[in-house]
Amino acid sequence: MHFTSQQRLADGILEREFDLGEIPGVLWTPTSSPAPLILLGHPGGLRRMYPRLAGRARQSAAYGFATATIELPGSGDRTPSADAEQARTDLHRALAAGEPVDEIVDRLVLPLVERAVPEWQTTLDALLSLPEISGPVGYSGGVIAIGVRLALVEPRIAAAGLFAGSFVPRVMFDEARRVMIPLHVLLQWDDEGNDRQQALDLFDAFGSREKTLHANMGGHTGVPHFAGDDAARFFVRHLRS
Amino acid sequence: MHFTSQQRLADGILEREFDLGEIPGVLWTPTSSPAPLILLGHPGGLRRMYPRLAGRARQSAAYGFATATIELPGSGDRTPSADAEQARTDLHRALAAGEPVDEIVDRLVLPLVERAVPEWQTTLDALLSLPEISGPVGYSGGVIAIGVRLALVEPRIAAAGLFAGSFVPRVMFDEARRVMIPLHVLLQWDDEGNDRQQALDLFDAFGSREKTLHANMGGHTGVPHFAGDDAARFFVRHLRS
Repeated sequence: MHFTSQQRLADGILEREFDLGEIPGVLWTPTSSPAPLILLGHPGGLRRMYPRLAGRARQSAAYGFATATIELPGSGDRTPSADAEQARTDLHRALAAGEPVDEIVDRLVLPLVERAVPEWQTTLDALLSLPEISGPVGYSGGVIAIGVRLALVEPRIAAAGLFAGSFVPRVMFDEARRVMIPLHVLLQWDDEGNDRQQALDLFDAFGSREKTLHANMGGHTGVPHFAGDDAARFFVRHLRS
Repeated sequence: MHFTSQQRLADGILEREFDLGEIPGVLWTPTSSPAPLILLGHPGGLRRMYPRLAGRARQSAAYGFATATIELPGSGDRTPSADAEQARTDLHRALAAGEPVDEIVDRLVLPLVERAVPEWQTTLDALLSLPEISGPVGYSGGVIAIGVRLALVEPRIAAAGLFAGSFVPRVMFDEARRVMIPLHVLLQWDDEGNDRQQALDLFDAFGSREKTLHANMGGHTGVPHFAGDDAARFFVRHLRS
C-alpha cells in the first residue's frame, strides 16, 4: 500500500489516496485512533463518486469510524472490460425494451464480483496492518452483489450496510440465504433504474437474524441525510460495542 | 378531561390517568414543558398494553415529547361490540382456513375507524388545552387504519409513525393516496399475523413526499429497541425543528 497524497479535511479527518498494485483507493481516518473500519462500496468511477464518498466518510468519521474505498475493476482509470461494457449496453437496451435481463445481469455482475471481492480482501489485509486502523470491519454501500459475497466469504466483516440499488444475479440468492451477519439494507423506493421487487426478495432471503430494511424516497442518488445517520448508528451498535 | 390518578416515574415523567366522558386514557409528560405531543396508538386493551405503552412513553420523553393514549371503542373496560367480536372470530377462522378476508376486515376495521377517530380528535382538543402540552402533534403506532384516517382528516397531526401490523380495508388505500404529511412506517417483516404484501402496497400508496419504511425482524411484538429510537428521531425532525 503506497500513499500518493494526503490532505487534512474539516473536523481533522486525514484523507490519503493510495495505490495497492494497480488498484487506486482512498483512506479517511478520524482524529481518534485506532478506529474501527468501514469499507465504502460504490458503483465504480472513483473521481465521479468522490463527492458522495467523501460525504459518507465525513458522516462516518463523526461516529468515530475510519473509511476506505477502492476503484472497481474496469472502472475509472483502470483497464476497461470490453465484456462488461457490452453487458452494460445490452442491459440498458433490454430494460428500455422491457425484455428479461437475468442473463445480462449474470454477464455484467458475476465477473465483477469474482474480481472485486479478492481485491477488497487484499485491501483489507493492507488496511488492518496500519496502526491507526483496528477491527471490527463493516462493509457499506453497493454494488450490493459484491457486499453479499463479501459478507459471506470474509469473516473479518462483522456487519454490512447494503445499498439495494443494483441488479443481483439470481444465483446469488443462494449466497444471501447463507449470510448470517447483521445487515442494514437501504432501498430507494422510487429508484427507477432498480428492480424494487428483487430488492425486497433479496432482503427476505438473507439468513441474518438481525436484518433491517430502510426504504426512502428521493430516487437512486437521493438518499436522505438522516438515512446515513441511521446507517452509522447501525455500525455503532455492531462495531463499537 | 378528569384526572383520576397520578404518579411520578423514573426520569421525572409524570403519568396521569384520565377519563374523558366514557373514554379512559393515560397522559405522560416530561419535566420540560410545554412539550410537543405524540398520540400513542395501540390495538386496544389499555391494561394489557400498559407495559409497552409506558415503555414507548419513556422512550419518547427522553426526546422531550409528551405522550397520551386512550382506550379504543369496544376494548378493555369499555362496552364490547358484538359485531366486532364476531368479525374478529371470523377473521381468525378465515386466516386459519386460508380464505379471503377482505369483507371481514371491512366489518372489523371500518366501524372502529369511524368511532375511534372522532374520539382521538376530542382527546386532542382536551390535551392541547393543557398548559404543559404544545403542538405540533404526531400520531404513533397502530391500529394503522386509524392512523391513516387521522393523518388525512386531522390537520393538527403534522407527522405520523405508523405500525403496519394490522389489516387495512381496501377502501382506505384511496385515503392513503391523499395522505401528504411525513410518514415513518414500521413493519415487522416476520409478523406472521400480518399481510406483509398489503403493508408494502400501503406504503407505496401513501402520497407523502417524505415517507420511510423501516422493516425489522422479531415478530409482531418484537420491535427492536433501536427501532423506537429511529421513530423518535423522525418525530424530532418533524415536531421539534
